[in-house]
Amino acid sequence: MGDFNQSVILEAIRRSGEGLSRIELVEATGLSAQTVTNITRRLLDDGFIREAGRTINGPGKPRVTLRLIAESRFSVGVHLDPAIMTFVLLDLSGAVVRRMAVRTPKKDPRRIVEAMATTIDSLITAAGVDRSRIAGVGVAAPGPLDPAMGTVIDPPKLLGWHRVPLRSVLAEATGLPVTLEKDTTAAAVGELWTRPGSSDDSFVFVYLGTGIGAALARDGDVVRGNTQNLGEIGHIVVDPDGPACLCGSRGCVEVVCTPQAIVEQAEHAGVFPDDREASDVEAVEARFTQLCERAAAGDGPAARVLRQAAGHMAVLTAVLTNLLDVDRVVFGGPFWPRLSDVYLREIPGRLERLSATRAVRTLPVAGTVVGVDVGAVGAACVVLDSVLTPRTTDLLLEH
Amino acid sequence: MGDFNQSVILEAIRRSGEGLSRIELVEATGLSAQTVTNITRRLLDDGFIREAGRTINGPGKPRVTLRLIAESRFSVGVHLDPAIMTFVLLDLSGAVVRRMAVRTPKKDPRRIVEAMATTIDSLITAAGVDRSRIAGVGVAAPGPLDPAMGTVIDPPKLLGWHRVPLRSVLAEATGLPVTLEKDTTAAAVGELWTRPGSSDDSFVFVYLGTGIGAALARDGDVVRGNTQNLGEIGHIVVDPDGPACLCGSRGCVEVVCTPQAIVEQAEHAGVFPDDREASDVEAVEARFTQLCERAAAGDGPAARVLRQAAGHMAVLTAVLTNLLDVDRVVFGGPFWPRLSDVYLREIPGRLERLSATRAVRTLPVAGTVVGVDVGAVGAACVVLDSVLTPRTTDLLLEH
Repeated sequence: MGDFNQSVILEAIRRSGEGLSRIELVEATGLSAQTVTNITRRLLDDGFIREAGRTINGPGKPRVTLRLIAESRFSVGVHLDPAIMTFVLLDLSGAVVRRMAVRTPKKDPRRIVEAMATTIDSLITAAGVDRSRIAGVGVAAPGPLDPAMGTVIDPPKLLGWHRVPLRSVLAEATGLPVTLEKDTTAAAVGELWTRPGSSDDSFVFVYLGTGIGAALARDGDVVRGNTQNLGEIGHIVVDPDGPACLCGSRGCVEVVCTPQAIVEQAEHAGVFPDDREASDVEAVEARFTQLCERAAAGDGPAARVLRQAAGHMAVLTAVLTNLLDVDRVVFGGPFWPRLSDVYLREIPGRLERLSATRAVRTLPVAGTVVGVDVGAVGAACVVLDSVLTPRTTDLLLEH
Repeated sequence: MGDFNQSVILEAIRRSGEGLSRIELVEATGLSAQTVTNITRRLLDDGFIREAGRTINGPGKPRVTLRLIAESRFSVGVHLDPAIMTFVLLDLSGAVVRRMAVRTPKKDPRRIVEAMATTIDSLITAAGVDRSRIAGVGVAAPGPLDPAMGTVIDPPKLLGWHRVPLRSVLAEATGLPVTLEKDTTAAAVGELWTRPGSSDDSFVFVYLGTGIGAALARDGDVVRGNTQNLGEIGHIVVDPDGPACLCGSRGCVEVVCTPQAIVEQAEHAGVFPDDREASDVEAVEARFTQLCERAAAGDGPAARVLRQAAGHMAVLTAVLTNLLDVDRVVFGGPFWPRLSDVYLREIPGRLERLSATRAVRTLPVAGTVVGVDVGAVGAACVVLDSVLTPRTTDLLLEH
C-alpha cells in the first residue's frame, strides 16, 4: 500500500495549492500520523515537496507547511490529430509551462514520428527544462489502439499506421518513456486531474475531434476498458434518416456528428453558395469555422444546421448516459469551443427528455475545464499520474 | 481490510468445492498465515465453515481441510416479471435448494407485493429451512429503479409502481431484509457467482426479458452505475428502417428486439395465418414460443424472422462492446433459451465484422451458465454477496 498512500498524500498536497501541514494531511487522508511522517520524509528526500514556512497555532510545536515543488518533474503531452499536432509541457502541478503546435506531415507515419521527436526536443529546450526532469511523453491518438503493438489501428485520415509501433519508435527517437493513450481517454484524465473536487467524479466525456469518441470516469478514476479502447461510439445511430454508413447502417455518429458531416449538412442546406474546392481536413475545418461564425452572427440556415447537430448529439449523450449511468456529461476536444454555445443551450433539455433516470435526477452538461488542448494536456497528465501512482500505469510505459 | 480479506477467504473456500487447507488458502489468497488463521477461526466460530478431515503430507502437522457449510445461510431470490414471478431459495454455496413460480397479479402493485410475501413464506416452509438462517430477500425487477424510494419507476406493463416502496413494504411483510436490484444487474451477479474462474471476468450481459436490458461486469465485479441503473439500452437504434418509437426516433431496441416486437415482425411476414386474439403478455409469449418452434422445425419465414432478429441483436451487441470494451458477451433471461440456437449461430460473425477492436481480438459470445432463472438466482446471489462482503451492499439493504 506504500505507493498508493504516497500518491494520496502527494495528490492532497498538489490539490491544496497553498500546501498542507502534516496534521492537515492526517485529517485529509485518514492515514496515521506515523505514515504521513514517513511518506512526507521520503517525498522531501526525493525533491517532490518542500517545507514552506511554519504556522504557530497556540501551544505545541509549530506546523510546517508542505508544498509541492512544481518544477521537480515535468511531462510532455502530444495530441496527434490528422491536421495538427499539439505539444504541451506540464509541471508536476499540472500547469502548462510551454505549448507548441505543428502541422501533421501527410501520408508517412514515420515522418510524423520524426516531426514529433523534433518538436518535443524544441519544446523542452525552449522551456529551459533539464531533460532529466522529464518524466516521460504521453501521446494522445485517435482510437482504436493496439496496446500490444503500441500503435493506432488504421484511423481514417492517418493511413498505414498499423505497421508503425508508434510508442517504441518515439521512445527510441526521444530517449524518453512514452505512454500511448486514446485521445478521448487522455481528455478524461486531464479533466479529472484539473477539476477541483473530482476525486469521486463519474462522467462520460464526449470528445469532438476529427472523429467523435467517448471516455468514462467512474468514482474519480478513468476506465480504460480491457484493450484500452473503451468509448468507440462512431457507429451508434443518432439519425435514422441520416446518410448511409460503411458499416451497413444509416445515420451513425461517424456520418452525422463529425465536423465533416456537419459541414456537408450545411452545404446541402445551402449555407454556402459555392462548392467546396478541397476535401482535405483543413478545407473542412475552414468551412466548419465559417458555419459556426455565421450561426453566431444570426444566420438562420447556419443556426438551424447547428441546432440539428445539437439534437443528434443529444440523442448520442442519452444513449451514453442511459447505458453508463454516470452523474454528468463533459464535452471537449478541438471542435468544442466553436460549438459550446449552441450545444449547451440545446442539449440539456433534450437529454433530460430522453433520460431513463429523469424521474430520479437531472444530468448536468458542461464543457471541460481544461480548454481546447485537453487531449495533449490529458496525455501529459497520464504521465504525471504514473509519477504519482507508479503501479497503475507501469504496464503502459515502454522505454 | 478485515471484511474484505474475510470475503476473499470465504470465496476461495466456496469456489474450491472440495475445501482448502489453511496453507492452500495462504497460497491462493496471498494473505499471511496469521491472517488466514485469525479469519478462519472467526468463520469456524460463526458457523460458515467446518473442519472436514485431515491430510498428512510427509512430515509436519497434518493439513486440515476447511469446507463451506452450505446450509449455514440461505437467501431468497425473486424475479418480478410482468407475466410471472419466479422464486428461488439458495444456500451459501449458491445451489438452488427450492424453486417456485406464480402468475403475477394484474394491475395492483400492493397485491403483487402480498403475493410475493406469501410465496416467500411457502418457499421457506417447503424447504424446511429455519427462518433465522435466511440472510435476506433479493428482488430482481425491470429497471429503471428509484434506489432512494426502493421501487421501480413506472415500467411498461407494471403501472402504478412509483407510489409503492417495494423494498420497505416487502421487508415489512416478510420480516426479512430486502435488496432491490435491476433484473439485468442481478443476472450479471448470478453469472459471476456461478461461473468458474470469473474473478477477473469482464463482460456485458444482454438480458432478454419482456424488455431488453444490459449489465456490466468489470474485473470480476458488477458495475451498477451512479443510480443503480446502468444498462438502460431500450432506445439504442438497431434498425434505421424499423418502426417509430415513442422516444421520437425509429428502430429502437424497444420496438425491434423485444419478444413482442419479434412476434409483430413474424405477423407482418405472414408466419401466422390468423390474427392474434389477445395482446397481453401471455398471448405474445405463446406466439413467440410458436415462432421459435416453427423456425427450429425448418419453417422458412419463421427462420428468416429470427435471423433478422439476430442481426438486430448483433448491431446492439456491437454498440455495447465497442463502447464498453469488455472481453465477452453473455446472453440470458427468460427468452434466451428459445433464441440461443439461432443467436449463437448468427451473432458472433456479425459482431466480429462490426467490432472496433477486430484487429486485436475476437469477442466470444455465450449463454449464461446459470440458466433460465438467472434473474431470480442472481437476486439471491446479491444477498449472499452481502453476507460475504458486508460493506459493498450495506447501503442497499433495508430492514
